[in-house]
Amino acid sequence: MQRIKLAEDLTFSQFIQGYWRLNDWSMSVSELTEFVKQHLDLGITTVDHADIYGDYECEAIFGQVLKHSPELRSKMEIVTKCDIKLVSGKYPERKIGHYDTSAQHIKQSVECSLQNLATDYIDVLLIHRPDALMNADEVADTFKALKQAGKVRQFGVSNFTPMQFDLLQSRLDDKLVTNQVELNPINMQTTADGTLEHLQKLRVAPMIWSCLAGGRIFSEQSEQASRLRETLSQIAQEVNASIDQVIYAWILKLPCNPLPIIGSGNIERVKTALVSADIKLTNEQWYRVWVASNGHNVP
Amino acid sequence: MQRIKLAEDLTFSQFIQGYWRLNDWSMSVSELTEFVKQHLDLGITTVDHADIYGDYECEAIFGQVLKHSPELRSKMEIVTKCDIKLVSGKYPERKIGHYDTSAQHIKQSVECSLQNLATDYIDVLLIHRPDALMNADEVADTFKALKQAGKVRQFGVSNFTPMQFDLLQSRLDDKLVTNQVELNPINMQTTADGTLEHLQKLRVAPMIWSCLAGGRIFSEQSEQASRLRETLSQIAQEVNASIDQVIYAWILKLPCNPLPIIGSGNIERVKTALVSADIKLTNEQWYRVWVASNGHNVP
Amino acid sequence: MQRIKLAEDLTFSQFIQGYWRLNDWSMSVSELTEFVKQHLDLGITTVDHADIYGDYECEAIFGQVLKHSPELRSKMEIVTKCDIKLVSGKYPERKIGHYDTSAQHIKQSVECSLQNLATDYIDVLLIHRPDALMNADEVADTFKALKQAGKVRQFGVSNFTPMQFDLLQSRLDDKLVTNQVELNPINMQTTADGTLEHLQKLRVAPMIWSCLAGGRIFSEQSEQASRLRETLSQIAQEVNASIDQVIYAWILKLPCNPLPIIGSGNIERVKTALVSADIKLTNEQWYRVWVASNGHNVP
Repeated sequence: MQRIKLAEDLTFSQFIQGYWRLNDWSMSVSELTEFVKQHLDLGITTVDHADIYGDYECEAIFGQVLKHSPELRSKMEIVTKCDIKLVSGKYPERKIGHYDTSAQHIKQSVECSLQNLATDYIDVLLIHRPDALMNADEVADTFKALKQAGKVRQFGVSNFTPMQFDLLQSRLDDKLVTNQVELNPINMQTTADGTLEHLQKLRVAPMIWSCLAGGRIFSEQSEQASRLRETLSQIAQEVNASIDQVIYAWILKLPCNPLPIIGSGNIERVKTALVSADIKLTNEQWYRVWVASNGHNVP
Repeated sequence: MQRIKLAEDLTFSQFIQGYWRLNDWSMSVSELTEFVKQHLDLGITTVDHADIYGDYECEAIFGQVLKHSPELRSKMEIVTKCDIKLVSGKYPERKIGHYDTSAQHIKQSVECSLQNLATDYIDVLLIHRPDALMNADEVADTFKALKQAGKVRQFGVSNFTPMQFDLLQSRLDDKLVTNQVELNPINMQTTADGTLEHLQKLRVAPMIWSCLAGGRIFSEQSEQASRLRETLSQIAQEVNASIDQVIYAWILKLPCNPLPIIGSGNIERVKTALVSADIKLTNEQWYRVWVASNGHNVP
Repeated sequence: MQRIKLAEDLTFSQFIQGYWRLNDWSMSVSELTEFVKQHLDLGITTVDHADIYGDYECEAIFGQVLKHSPELRSKMEIVTKCDIKLVSGKYPERKIGHYDTSAQHIKQSVECSLQNLATDYIDVLLIHRPDALMNADEVADTFKALKQAGKVRQFGVSNFTPMQFDLLQSRLDDKLVTNQVELNPINMQTTADGTLEHLQKLRVAPMIWSCLAGGRIFSEQSEQASRLRETLSQIAQEVNASIDQVIYAWILKLPCNPLPIIGSGNIERVKTALVSADIKLTNEQWYRVWVASNGHNVP
């Protein structure tokens, strides 16, 4: 498993295990512990969380593993996120989902995540969604305080535009270590709007969420999905792989050091995904997916 | 009244008195003088003009005040603008409205403004609209000459994109001190296209025009305006304020030091607006207006 | 003929002779040699090529001239391009058109161009289209190697956004010397999306392709083309020129040092185009074309 350097003292595994659907997996603590050990053995040492996943419950489920097997903590890098405030039975006073990047909320969210995850530090904390009310000075001061307190090692963002990234970066001494963005053959926006080029320029490796578009490529009745199914199937035959593997290989071909997040709790599907690191698509195969996605030839 | 620092030797009042409809107010010189003194007493010391307001007539109406009460000049900061060439009975040779950022036109426009306003200096001169023909070197040289001649103290722009701002800034030794942009609950574009984030990054305080969307929120028969009326009314009840005040408070909650321009010539409405500086909306209230404006929840 | 400095040791003629339709002109080698000498005599010393023009055949047709008259080589600056891979009978294995900015393809393409053009150096090599798979480090290393080998003097890009330009520039010691972009009264996008402002900021002179929109202004049955025909005809009468000349003058009025490419193989039409350098449109005339193109007045 290739490792990607995010900061002087921090590397991530090229593939990242995502835990946003963990509460759907119905695993016992020992089953989950087994799953974690298995993906660590495969070299997937980086795990992706957020305070809100599973209606604020996934972090605590994962924390049970670390509570019972604390020796696993040092073998992994934990990413978690803050700033989304969901409408939830747990917060009955909320009327709408919104964002909050105030010092108070970020600190509160980190305390909750530390407690839920049963750890005393987060490797990387991300601002989950850009917040029009973000005071970059306040966020930067908060990051600094969290780092000095030893609670968070490094910081990043998610779903940020280049301008939003530059704004926050302008107030920080340390580099933001990642921008977690959506990318899949159905939604190629970040390859077209400058997001990935900006990250390549800054040598910041993006984490990629929704690599498989939540299964829409397989099930959606749109012309785009239908074109993609046909093209991806052809390429899968050409390279002797599954469609999933072709999609991961298609993402890994980007020159910005993308770090795909795998969302499955099935260790066999996880193993299958890893094989894609060895599938080398040609430029033409990559662009055939581009054409199927966009519905027209390149200019 | 909070004061915002725009340059080493220049501060603005947080609220700015706009004079673009001055010729509709039908005030005598003494009535207008009284109005000016009243808003100065309220702490609103910054006034917003443009060469073209009122078909090129507003500046001269205001100038009557300074002609009769020259002692008021030092108590205010005058902003005015140039580069729009309006179709007007005063310029019968013009076929269409257009822009002109040539040295000749900027200098000519400043001379007219100085004479009309009955002052020997402008505090801040803005380029009113981005001009595709703008030669940034020529504009920068013109700014420099106007500053050295003591005719203009500082310079800014209006309705500029980040790229246009950076282009002009790249040729100037002094910082552009503001970008006057539109923002209101109907038109939130500058919060979404990077404009305000860019200004926050540069620590440049934007002046905000059309805060109340010219009354469209109250009168327009669109679904958006109707959603906004309902949401703003609810929030107004929650914070015990008027809808106008909620809108100003909603703008002031942005982290980029926005400077709202008040367009009313009614001193009671002006006083009412100022109260909004003390209304603290929650993040959730701010985003409820976002949702009403956009017609969907945040991502 | 005005000359524009692109680098310390490189100037271009303000007008550039384009050879993308050369294989349609049905010229003998001696006719083409005569044509080249004629435009050199007019001061047009810069010629625009690409590996793919005329289904990969134009470069070699032009190369016949240099083979028979090698003394002409030092009198011109040759621009050519790489990275598009066309569907072509010459490459029967290709399924779709795509891009390739790998070191291997760029070097291979340059070798072909050098051989086809019968020259041992290219003055400026452009990346023809932005490639989502561009590894900027790899391209930069390739540029460096080609320069050190004396095969290419300077480098540029074509159809790049500001972000794509900045990405590649960030890896280069030398400045990219141009960005060749489309601009004409039908397609004004590069005047509105920041492309030309970014180039003005960097003092990079853009080459302009499709100045006459491939004749669409004269023939197209759209409302836009019809408005443009009317407005351009009026302006042509006002300045006593042809519509073509008005269009070139309209492009040359931009403040970013645009370098229009002339695509005609008819020396009389070429001469006609050059006259436009002496036609000075007013700002209002320029914006009348803007209004005809956009279908509404300026804001």
